Amino acid sequence: MTEDSRLVTFGESMLRLSPPGHERLTHTDRLDVHVAGAESNVAVAANAVGLPSTWTSKLPESPLGRRVTNALREYGIDTAVAWSDDGRQGTYYVEAGTKPRGTNVVYDREGASVRTATVDDLPLDRIAAADAFYTSGITPALGETLRETTEAVLEAARGEDTLTVFDVNYRSKLWTGEEARAGIEPLLGDVDVLVCARRDAELVFDVDGTPAEKARALADEYGVETVVVTRGANGALAVHDGDVVERDAFETETVDAVGSGDAFVGGFLAKFVPTGDVGRALEYGTATAALKRTIPGDMAAVTREEVEALVAEGGDGGISR
Amino acid sequence: MTEDSRLVTFGESMLRLSPPGHERLTHTDRLDVHVAGAESNVAVAANAVGLPSTWTSKLPESPLGRRVTNALREYGIDTAVAWSDDGRQGTYYVEAGTKPRGTNVVYDREGASVRTATVDDLPLDRIAAADAFYTSGITPALGETLRETTEAVLEAARGEDTLTVFDVNYRSKLWTGEEARAGIEPLLGDVDVLVCARRDAELVFDVDGTPAEKARALADEYGVETVVVTRGANGALAVHDGDVVERDAFETETVDAVGSGDAFVGGFLAKFVPTGDVGRALEYGTATAALKRTIPGDMAAVTREEVEALVAEGGDGGISR
Amino acid sequence: MTEDSRLVTFGESMLRLSPPGHERLTHTDRLDVHVAGAESNVAVAANAVGLPSTWTSKLPESPLGRRVTNALREYGIDTAVAWSDDGRQGTYYVEAGTKPRGTNVVYDREGASVRTATVDDLPLDRIAAADAFYTSGITPALGETLRETTEAVLEAARGEDTLTVFDVNYRSKLWTGEEARAGIEPLLGDVDVLVCARRDAELVFDVDGTPAEKARALADEYGVETVVVTRGANGALAVHDGDVVERDAFETETVDAVGSGDAFVGGFLAKFVPTGDVGRALEYGTATAALKRTIPGDMAAVTREEVEALVAEGGDGGISR
Amino acid sequence: MTEDSRLVTFGESMLRLSPPGHERLTHTDRLDVHVAGAESNVAVAANAVGLPSTWTSKLPESPLGRRVTNALREYGIDTAVAWSDDGRQGTYYVEAGTKPRGTNVVYDREGASVRTATVDDLPLDRIAAADAFYTSGITPALGETLRETTEAVLEAARGEDTLTVFDVNYRSKLWTGEEARAGIEPLLGDVDVLVCARRDAELVFDVDGTPAEKARALADEYGVETVVVTRGANGALAVHDGDVVERDAFETETVDAVGSGDAFVGGFLAKFVPTGDVGRALEYGTATAALKRTIPGDMAAVTREEVEALVAEGGDGGISR
Amino acid sequence: MTEDSRLVTFGESMLRLSPPGHERLTHTDRLDVHVAGAESNVAVAANAVGLPSTWTSKLPESPLGRRVTNALREYGIDTAVAWSDDGRQGTYYVEAGTKPRGTNVVYDREGASVRTATVDDLPLDRIAAADAFYTSGITPALGETLRETTEAVLEAARGEDTLTVFDVNYRSKLWTGEEARAGIEPLLGDVDVLVCARRDAELVFDVDGTPAEKARALADEYGVETVVVTRGANGALAVHDGDVVERDAFETETVDAVGSGDAFVGGFLAKFVPTGDVGRALEYGTATAALKRTIPGDMAAVTREEVEALVAEGGDGGISR
Amino acid sequence: MTEDSRLVTFGESMLRLSPPGHERLTHTDRLDVHVAGAESNVAVAANAVGLPSTWTSKLPESPLGRRVTNALREYGIDTAVAWSDDGRQGTYYVEAGTKPRGTNVVYDREGASVRTATVDDLPLDRIAAADAFYTSGITPALGETLRETTEAVLEAARGEDTLTVFDVNYRSKLWTGEEARAGIEPLLGDVDVLVCARRDAELVFDVDGTPAEKARALADEYGVETVVVTRGANGALAVHDGDVVERDAFETETVDAVGSGDAFVGGFLAKFVPTGDVGRALEYGTATAALKRTIPGDMAAVTREEVEALVAEGGDGGISR
Ligand SMILES: [Ca+2]
Ligand SMILES: [Ca+2]
Ligand SMILES: [Ca+2]
Ligand SMILES: [Ca+2]
Ligand SMILES: [Ca+2]
Ligand SMILES: [Ca+2]
Ligand SMILES: [Ca+2]
Ligand SMILES: [Ca+2]
Ligand SMILES: [Ca+2]
Ligand SMILES: [Ca+2]
Ligand SMILES: [Ca+2]
Ligand SMILES: [Ca+2]
Ligand code: NI
Ligand code: NI
Ligand code: NI
Ligand code: NI
Ligand code: NI
Ligand code: NI
Ligand code: NI
Ligand code: NI
Ligand code: NI
Ligand code: NI
Ligand code: NI
Ligand code: NI
Ligand code: NI
Ligand code: NI
Ligand code: NI
Ligand code: NI
Ligand code: NI
Ligand code: NI
Repeated sequence: MTEDSRLVTFGESMLRLSPPGHERLTHTDRLDVHVAGAESNVAVAANAVGLPSTWTSKLPESPLGRRVTNALREYGIDTAVAWSDDGRQGTYYVEAGTKPRGTNVVYDREGASVRTATVDDLPLDRIAAADAFYTSGITPALGETLRETTEAVLEAARGEDTLTVFDVNYRSKLWTGEEARAGIEPLLGDVDVLVCARRDAELVFDVDGTPAEKARALADEYGVETVVVTRGANGALAVHDGDVVERDAFETETVDAVGSGDAFVGGFLAKFVPTGDVGRALEYGTATAALKRTIPGDMAAVTREEVEALVAEGGDGGISR
Repeated sequence: MTEDSRLVTFGESMLRLSPPGHERLTHTDRLDVHVAGAESNVAVAANAVGLPSTWTSKLPESPLGRRVTNALREYGIDTAVAWSDDGRQGTYYVEAGTKPRGTNVVYDREGASVRTATVDDLPLDRIAAADAFYTSGITPALGETLRETTEAVLEAARGEDTLTVFDVNYRSKLWTGEEARAGIEPLLGDVDVLVCARRDAELVFDVDGTPAEKARALADEYGVETVVVTRGANGALAVHDGDVVERDAFETETVDAVGSGDAFVGGFLAKFVPTGDVGRALEYGTATAALKRTIPGDMAAVTREEVEALVAEGGDGGISR
Repeated sequence: MTEDSRLVTFGESMLRLSPPGHERLTHTDRLDVHVAGAESNVAVAANAVGLPSTWTSKLPESPLGRRVTNALREYGIDTAVAWSDDGRQGTYYVEAGTKPRGTNVVYDREGASVRTATVDDLPLDRIAAADAFYTSGITPALGETLRETTEAVLEAARGEDTLTVFDVNYRSKLWTGEEARAGIEPLLGDVDVLVCARRDAELVFDVDGTPAEKARALADEYGVETVVVTRGANGALAVHDGDVVERDAFETETVDAVGSGDAFVGGFLAKFVPTGDVGRALEYGTATAALKRTIPGDMAAVTREEVEALVAEGGDGGISR
Repeated sequence: MTEDSRLVTFGESMLRLSPPGHERLTHTDRLDVHVAGAESNVAVAANAVGLPSTWTSKLPESPLGRRVTNALREYGIDTAVAWSDDGRQGTYYVEAGTKPRGTNVVYDREGASVRTATVDDLPLDRIAAADAFYTSGITPALGETLRETTEAVLEAARGEDTLTVFDVNYRSKLWTGEEARAGIEPLLGDVDVLVCARRDAELVFDVDGTPAEKARALADEYGVETVVVTRGANGALAVHDGDVVERDAFETETVDAVGSGDAFVGGFLAKFVPTGDVGRALEYGTATAALKRTIPGDMAAVTREEVEALVAEGGDGGISR
Repeated sequence: MTEDSRLVTFGESMLRLSPPGHERLTHTDRLDVHVAGAESNVAVAANAVGLPSTWTSKLPESPLGRRVTNALREYGIDTAVAWSDDGRQGTYYVEAGTKPRGTNVVYDREGASVRTATVDDLPLDRIAAADAFYTSGITPALGETLRETTEAVLEAARGEDTLTVFDVNYRSKLWTGEEARAGIEPLLGDVDVLVCARRDAELVFDVDGTPAEKARALADEYGVETVVVTRGANGALAVHDGDVVERDAFETETVDAVGSGDAFVGGFLAKFVPTGDVGRALEYGTATAALKRTIPGDMAAVTREEVEALVAEGGDGGISR
Repeated sequence: MTEDSRLVTFGESMLRLSPPGHERLTHTDRLDVHVAGAESNVAVAANAVGLPSTWTSKLPESPLGRRVTNALREYGIDTAVAWSDDGRQGTYYVEAGTKPRGTNVVYDREGASVRTATVDDLPLDRIAAADAFYTSGITPALGETLRETTEAVLEAARGEDTLTVFDVNYRSKLWTGEEARAGIEPLLGDVDVLVCARRDAELVFDVDGTPAEKARALADEYGVETVVVTRGANGALAVHDGDVVERDAFETETVDAVGSGDAFVGGFLAKFVPTGDVGRALEYGTATAALKRTIPGDMAAVTREEVEALVAEGGDGGISR
């Protein structure tokens, strides 16, 4: 860990509390604890697939805040945290449904320490030294301070030739589509790679059409070099310098879908950052997302070998003995 | 809870003991405890969907008997219990199978206190004040005393213009089809709403044909105003004053099927009792049953909002965040 | 539950989240969920020992808020809740130590819905109809609004000849001793029964001496008719109309000490409210507290029979079979 | 297991269901399953310490009945069961207290298949071939049929020169002291070794004095060759042919006290049956009981080596590595 | 258990350690313990379906070795073990995947005591007295000593007219296909029934074609009277004295696939050994395998009645109550 | 983690597998997984108390080996591992006793990858750059290769002015006292700080007398500048340049004693390395050990603040709220 990280991500990471199995929050006597957040999830996935990663944020100086960094270190990523005496540790509750009951997320993240993070809380030198920087639309959704910080850090990263990556990650429980558009558009001038779910293209940017049309529209409208549009079950497509590249998703039997979008981005970056090969990066992304779906919790506890084997040979879930 | 309940149900409620996952009873080191019984299940479901409900029964004055009322109160229903120094707390064991092994129920309910319940043990004033009264064929199956009590309470309820609802709920481990018919037929003269599974119509009443034909036959034979016939996977149909109303089931990925029939009845009554709208009531019933299938245990831990959203929009089990 | 409650309590109730055994918060993968709060704890204990009780408060309309009322109903008490669309559900984390590591409580209760509760949110008619009303120093510690509400509700209760009971319950993580004194003193003019831990008498009211001297000093200073001072391991003493009554604690092997002070108050009130017998009430209080110490979680899941047997015969933890 | 067992025991074995930790039955969501019964406990302990043992009884042909024999075989003892289509599997619930709350046993054993066991259900040939036969006062307490069966089997065993061993094992929830005396006295003429707790000597036989005096009184009154009186914390004393032999208990930190009396008897017999050495047998008994106290469940999952090491060297609970 | 076993199996049995659910070995905090090994699995399945069975092997004299025999006795089979002071207890780790992540087995079985087992460690008299003897290709894969022992015991069994059964059970983590062929071919001259997975026929014996062609080729090449070829999802086919008999698999919803091949063999032998009816035996085998797939762990905890009911009526996983 | 570590430790770290509670290995169905080893334990404790630490070793490239580094990173220490394709991951089983049954450790560490570690596998540059290097007598006990590696690395560290620390850590299940002496004596010429349990001084070095006399004897005999002798319950004493310094242990209620000796050394070094203050270092050591005893698992999951508060104020295990 003495070598510099090649990816730095910035955002909120929370305690994810979930009843066992399909129990209901209203009656559960137990909560399983995981640590989750789009940006730390991406760091974990990218790191697992081979891109050494750092996550940076602001946390309360408390056992709950330390629970977060302990988990991230367990998953191999470096942490650069501004420890704070103010604010709380964000949490959220996930109640796992099956058809027709949906999986329900109850956020309890108001007042989190991270909401006061300014650019001075961030390790700009590490971001400058890194190959890539990532954050998502969740960060500016958390308040005006974080919106300004996001803008400043993207600008700073780009100024240092660090590849800037932004995932729209629209969350309807945080803001409306219109608010999201207003909050995100000013940031896109400093973004090199934009990731956007097919549905978010419509809800946030009012862009219609096929996934490829949506990707082109976003690339044109905002002048972003690489736009990745993710489709259902984590297949994906990219428009890169005008060319469309597309990859199917792997068939999965899903154990836990939460975090698979972040795993896609982490796997994508692990290949894209060192090689610039969009097609291979999409394959790594879809493979990482598919493997994540077989694992409880948000974190893609996979290995580069597993991702490469899946890309090369596919996987049917058989027994290896 | 100071206002009167609008539904009163009467029957046995047991401790439901089940090994975790798909473990076998013959080897399990642990049993999960739930409280279950057709009539308390119906009360819980109806109450959850908006019809304030009371469950009445007889229980042993013991920690096990109190475990039952504690659970029912947790699920929001009022209890009116005759506490007894005689008899035991009924239990049953559920071993969850998957294909091709069936789910196996082992009853251990002989000698339960409830088997000596007479009409004097029941809160006839509350039943009179309620809008509806419910019991099922399981109650008279539990012995001659309970058969007589069932007859008396149905007659009393009807005499007070309380809507009487009866679910055949045939259990082959309690009595034969012939015994069931002999035990149930004398009760039907006091029944306003009869619920019967498609298969039970044949096994108990020797009625063949399509579900609609079965419903008509039962309505005609026994002079019941409303007959509901439930079909596979909890779709259902009703004959009401001669008209047939039918609703499909919702597609489900089932976590625990036990209790879904009772959830159907509870959801149905929550709509039918205040409105008399059979079609809407069937929708509420199938929606409540479908949601129950996603929840471990017999109890429909749902909200009226969830049922209404499912009826209005359907549900695909996605993530809400 | 159709009869009126004889005790009404008012305060915050939280989700109490604790790692299993003696695990540390910084590493735990699981949290056990209990519901706790001084005032709901007192209601549960008093109700268990025979005084029908209602808890009143303000909660967020969310699965977490409903988790609170579900638990309280499971323990047999009636709830009168103002459901709110604003504010969050308070939580706190308990990490159980053993010697020399202390048990550590991490509060996460900022921004709770209850903090905006005004006297209009409370069921004043029920409080008027009740025999007694209880709240503790934790309530005014939660902000100026709640301090005013506490003052108003104590005054209203007294005006209706409802016995008013107040437990100092000093929490150093909520306010300083000086702040507590400033917040509590103005309330004492409307208090009939004051409960104060020996140590809190010093920390909050700067009162020294033996427990009896402290009780007398508080009674004199604030003109309170009955002052109960609790000593180590839940023995207790009262000054009532100038007389000192004292009872030893029962010897215990403690499983969970949290909530035992509230259990004392609940047991005390269950005897004191109907009889006014201070000595017997102290016995019921110490017995209830001792039994609570053998039970995990804050709630005194005991029976009146158990309390009476302990008062009458003592208890050595042997096997009854 | 092809060689004959040297000890045969006869009695009821039940499913022992207990909430985890110190949870209360009235609220628990989980029950841990053990198999227990005085006579099977003795067989397990004796077998573990080196005396090959068979347990005989009558069980229902059901998954619950098979759960019992599976557990006993796991612990190494042979089972000779009359499988029955009538009667139920007895269960009991154990709620573990600590001071001052006692451990509470709730029996649910009415109607068990074993209550109809006659001497024809028992393997008399094996009992004849064995060195010793054991049953306890619990067996005749379970009804007139079993009382008669007990009498017949003791007589038959003695007639075959099999050493007959009887433990009074008074259970106040099964019968009164007077009933016990009336049920047991007629059996004692066929008993070679009588085991009686100090307290039971008083409650059942109205015998006072020191443990030695009690043992002598019982030996004289009933003409029993060897009388063992167990004292608090499982120390013990025997009168054998008029001589008193006494051994202290080992100091223990108890995890689960239930079954330790049976473990004492099993350890005692494992030494007494092959050697007739009363003093050494008492040492083996107290050592086996002390080790059992460190193990959850009724069964003495120990080894002969552990018992011998404890007898020889004592034990302080240190780490062996 | 005093009657002779009709089947004796010989091989390694291990502790199977697996994270709960789909957790990853790299992060799990808990391992569930089962006991598993092809030959003990076959004994358990055959015994459950009605063929009394003994498992023989060599184990370390340690708590871990005793854990193995305790489990096997719990499942009703007799054990004949050479206890050793040398060598360790083999373990393996199973990490359950779902599509596309495969289930991964990590062996930790080097240096196990069984690897030094010679024919002198085995109960040749019991094998001679038995109707059938079974071992699998895993045994000779564990080293030259075990290869020689396997050869000697097969020869000895055949010399005593005990039916010899051998399952190829190729494990790519133990040896290559070529090594397997070299190790197994010399044994086949003493084999009466050869079981071989369709895929292993190719990987080990380089035999192509349809399952029937493969079975014929193996029967011809090695002069084996009965060759069973198992196909996907446990359907199977046999060539017996030149005739082909074939049975479909039952449709299953799989909980745990590991051990289903062994369950097939056990079910097959339970019918084949007493009757010689190949077709019925295949039905019993596929039914036992299908039921095993619904049970966690390697062991077929089924009953003969369940297997017979499945063969006779099929099974859809419904509720029996 | 970009700054250099101030302490480097070298040794074997294992998977520690333990049944829950006081269950026995012979019957447990579950094992809790921790990572443990004297040298990694010391690194964790020292790091927690403020001395940045690295652990170095050799591990198999497998999920089990990665489980080890994941855990150590979770606890904040840096790892420098030689990943190997040969050898296995060492494990051990801990069965927790209470009086009189001892806690039993069953090692399964034969053939571990670390046993082939040579000095070339170690990061000598980091050891040179560190302030201190630590290993224990367990390392040379694991074979001749590791004995040589230990000798070489101690010599190398000393040659670079890195303080060398050695804990005798005698394990009777690894070697005899005589073997230990022969293996350790040649190393002591390169040791600056020697830690030795009072009992080990006798068993290994045949040194009698009071703890102070033992410390002096060891210091004189082997020319070690600082000798720390630990006494019962983790009190300790040091001879440093001829002076004796002594500190009492803290009173504890022990949850898990395993690893407390290592926690002592870690706490000691965290103070001794930066300050050289022996007395304060003993206080930090005894405080860290006392806190470790309240935590399940080997690892001292404490904070510097907790240790300092305990040293300053003592600790009675009360509630902080
Ligand atoms: Ca609950
Ligand atoms: Ca995501
Ligand atoms: Ca078991
Ligand atoms: Ca039902
Ligand atoms: Ca973790
Ligand atoms: Ca309290
Ligand atoms: Ca519960
Ligand atoms: Ca006993
Ligand atoms: Ca963990
Ligand atoms: Ca297999
Ligand atoms: Ca078990
Ligand atoms: Ca250690
Ligand atoms: Ni699921
Ligand atoms: Ni996420
Ligand atoms: Ni997890
Ligand atoms: Ni399932
Ligand atoms: Ni039901
Ligand atoms: Ni449940
Ligand atoms: Ni504890
Ligand atoms: Ni409290
Ligand atoms: Ni609890
Ligand atoms: Ni305890
Ligand atoms: Ni017992
Ligand atoms: Ni157990
Ligand atoms: Ni699964
Ligand atoms: Ni297997
Ligand atoms: Ni299992
Ligand atoms: Ni313990
Ligand atoms: Ni961990
Ligand atoms: Ni742990």
